[in-house]
Amino acid sequence: MKELTHSLPIVLVGAGNLATHLGKALKQAGYTIVQVYSRTNESATQLAELLQAEPVTEIDGLTTEAGLYIVALKDAVLPELIPSLLKGREESLWVHTAGSIPMNIWEEHGADRYGVFYPMQTFSKQRDVCFSEIPLFVEARCADDVCLLKEVAGELTNHVYEADSEQRRSLHLAAVFCSNFANHMYALSAGLLEKYNLPFSSMLSLIDETARKVHQLDPRQAQTGPAVRNDVNVMEKHLQMLADEPHLQSLYKALSESIHQMARSSSSEPASRKS
Amino acid sequence: MKELTHSLPIVLVGAGNLATHLGKALKQAGYTIVQVYSRTNESATQLAELLQAEPVTEIDGLTTEAGLYIVALKDAVLPELIPSLLKGREESLWVHTAGSIPMNIWEEHGADRYGVFYPMQTFSKQRDVCFSEIPLFVEARCADDVCLLKEVAGELTNHVYEADSEQRRSLHLAAVFCSNFANHMYALSAGLLEKYNLPFSSMLSLIDETARKVHQLDPRQAQTGPAVRNDVNVMEKHLQMLADEPHLQSLYKALSESIHQMARSSSSEPASRKS
Repeated sequence: MKELTHSLPIVLVGAGNLATHLGKALKQAGYTIVQVYSRTNESATQLAELLQAEPVTEIDGLTTEAGLYIVALKDAVLPELIPSLLKGREESLWVHTAGSIPMNIWEEHGADRYGVFYPMQTFSKQRDVCFSEIPLFVEARCADDVCLLKEVAGELTNHVYEADSEQRRSLHLAAVFCSNFANHMYALSAGLLEKYNLPFSSMLSLIDETARKVHQLDPRQAQTGPAVRNDVNVMEKHLQMLADEPHLQSLYKALSESIHQMARSSSSEPASRKS
Repeated sequence: MKELTHSLPIVLVGAGNLATHLGKALKQAGYTIVQVYSRTNESATQLAELLQAEPVTEIDGLTTEAGLYIVALKDAVLPELIPSLLKGREESLWVHTAGSIPMNIWEEHGADRYGVFYPMQTFSKQRDVCFSEIPLFVEARCADDVCLLKEVAGELTNHVYEADSEQRRSLHLAAVFCSNFANHMYALSAGLLEKYNLPFSSMLSLIDETARKVHQLDPRQAQTGPAVRNDVNVMEKHLQMLADEPHLQSLYKALSESIHQMARSSSSEPASRKS
């Protein structure tokens, strides 16, 4: 079986962060990436070189012979590209990597074998990730292809799950809060510290502990700070400090209010005196 | 010198999360906690027992003989309590632990030796923290007391800094974003996953990587997700999914808009195609 999937030639459609990390992980697991497609020559060439693949900038140039086509494009681009991708390659196995796009987008465009290959992680070009720790959610129209995708995924990570399109879009929405929005909190903090001439590194121990904590406690129980203990004095001072940044001020208000509401609705315990 | 600070009897005013963690760390470092004050008998007794100290529920019962009084109370309570705390103990060394309260609150009430002892971390009762990794910011009116506080702090952590009141309140505000607000993002995510019958544990790898990433990248560069790449289709879908939770919907909008604005203002680079 291993022999079988390793001899599966793979085409990567897309050359962004996800395509790059996925391509590198697949290559490292022993797969052959035959082609890398990107609209722009520079992106296609750069990733193709890294993966010892052929760069392709025109969809017509894509082989019809690959065993698996992995499409990692911006969600908005995918639907319009599918018809030309499939043309002459309707019988190949096609997967996309998007959390929010249902599997049946392939069916609508006349594909025969299709599915989804969704690694749930935050990928940045400048940073290597350890793929083996990433949860990877697969889905396919037919059972054989589910097996095949699970096998490929299993070469990359120990955390392979089947998830249908509805579960996947729920996971994706939850991930936006946990990762994209949490990171934006770090970013707003970085901006404030810059203004005060203090180093962002002073926050790292706090950021780490905040993340570690929710391995053990439900995040609703782990909540600390002025909002959850309704420390109006502190919040008023903070709002004054943000007086020249109305945008930050209104986010501070909205988030504190949201924390306070959640604490009130989820618990009838008295607030602790200090957290 | 070590002998000297270790023989310093300490009184803890407060028995909340911070007082508990601080008391345990001080005890472990070899200090004697002579008394623990809390309004409520239960809290005072519980922490005092843990620290082999005397529980005190009336301020009049506080010794006048301690070498250091550490006040870890809710910020709103501190100002009104200071006069009775100081009465007859004006010449002792008093510190509070609050990020947002300036040092001179002590002076206003006629203290002679005073300062601040601010460990910047998120403390929950249910979870032990490794104090040695926590940044601890000290400030005192006179140089000798700065030395003394640095020495005590240095027994608890390797990360001891002097910070004046303005720096400290800036750190505290930045910490609210990095920790309290980031945790609230986890909490909102946990609520969503519960609704969808998916386990919060599925997010842990993503949460960890999001935190690890900013050790290496500026969080503004580390930003990924639909908002930073302005993927309107995905955001529209997410907003539809939140249609029955107007509160979450409006937070989602405000945070996405904020991410988008920050990306536009901080960079003239083209957005990456997939993140």
